[in-house]
Amino acid sequence: MKKVISQATIDRLPLYFRTLRLVEEEEKQIISSDELGRRLDITPEQIRKDLATFGQFGRKGIGYDVHELKNKIANILGLHNNWRLAIVGIGHLGGALANYGNFDTLGFSVVALLDINENIIGSEVNGLKIENSALMKDVIEKKFVDIGVITVPASEAQAVAEQLIEAGIKGIWNFAPIKLSVPANIPLVNEDLSVGLSALSYHMSQC
Amino acid sequence: MKKVISQATIDRLPLYFRTLRLVEEEEKQIISSDELGRRLDITPEQIRKDLATFGQFGRKGIGYDVHELKNKIANILGLHNNWRLAIVGIGHLGGALANYGNFDTLGFSVVALLDINENIIGSEVNGLKIENSALMKDVIEKKFVDIGVITVPASEAQAVAEQLIEAGIKGIWNFAPIKLSVPANIPLVNEDLSVGLSALSYHMSQC
Repeated sequence: MKKVISQATIDRLPLYFRTLRLVEEEEKQIISSDELGRRLDITPEQIRKDLATFGQFGRKGIGYDVHELKNKIANILGLHNNWRLAIVGIGHLGGALANYGNFDTLGFSVVALLDINENIIGSEVNGLKIENSALMKDVIEKKFVDIGVITVPASEAQAVAEQLIEAGIKGIWNFAPIKLSVPANIPLVNEDLSVGLSALSYHMSQC
Repeated sequence: MKKVISQATIDRLPLYFRTLRLVEEEEKQIISSDELGRRLDITPEQIRKDLATFGQFGRKGIGYDVHELKNKIANILGLHNNWRLAIVGIGHLGGALANYGNFDTLGFSVVALLDINENIIGSEVNGLKIENSALMKDVIEKKFVDIGVITVPASEAQAVAEQLIEAGIKGIWNFAPIKLSVPANIPLVNEDLSVGLSALSYHMSQC
């Protein structure tokens, strides 16, 4: 039942989803792969190939039903799960993520903020109180947290990952610049800002 | 002269660079593709293939000279340029980036912060004063800024991109969730946090 879909295709799906949501807000009911391609700067052939991976949606010469396609992609990406996030490490980056408005539109909610620093425990960010990392297991159980977001320094990230897994987390989104060891049944995505910046540097050097 | 290198290879180079820097700090002089692979969770074959793209480094049965390989990768990525960044839009995300310590280690410096909000113009973040976006051209010329980092809301991002280009910027790092139109000679890298999070959601849904 579980088809293997390439990482590159998976990475494009949120772009499709977001564009379809905008198109839906414009009250358009049908969109062609040409127009979707124009809006995303992706070839229509690539779009048709990506979407064909998941079955037959479009109607030849007409296009895709915007609402149907949007919901189908949300299902493929698992966005209907309304994943609940806990951010561990409320420094600058953790604070920025706590305030980042765009998660809601994708069906994610930040439900807990955790930190070890007693000076900030109890204070609020974006309406959420920062709780004590020492109580992680309680907080995560009580708030039904699915995803642990790691924004602590690299030196603490592995220990925090282990605490999160011990507390029953189902997936980890890691911002610390370090390779984490996690069990195979815990999906892990690393977000590394230096990768994008280095790619930019590379392309600028070629100019 | 300009070889085309795949985006996937370019994306791995900063990971190699960072690991080599750590290995250098451990005072190791030689590293094998096996050990580099173990540290990065990449196959040794993939590493040898990536590095071979740029010429012959390693010595069979011995390994790579850590210092030489690190510098070679820095050169390929253009990190020796010491790119200078201006962040436009000092909200939560812009502020987090202004405080993000890891850019220095890759040879980037944040040299200017710009915002349109008079309530924060003049205040300091991480030792840098926030300047008025209306004076963008002056600031960018005076501070020899190379890269514009866009952290304004999506609705303002295209206008800011045009101002940055008009002001003489050489590359754009965009965090606004919108596709920007820029001339072909201006390298653009989009950083989209929802992509990583959606990929995580996908993998969690498969468990």
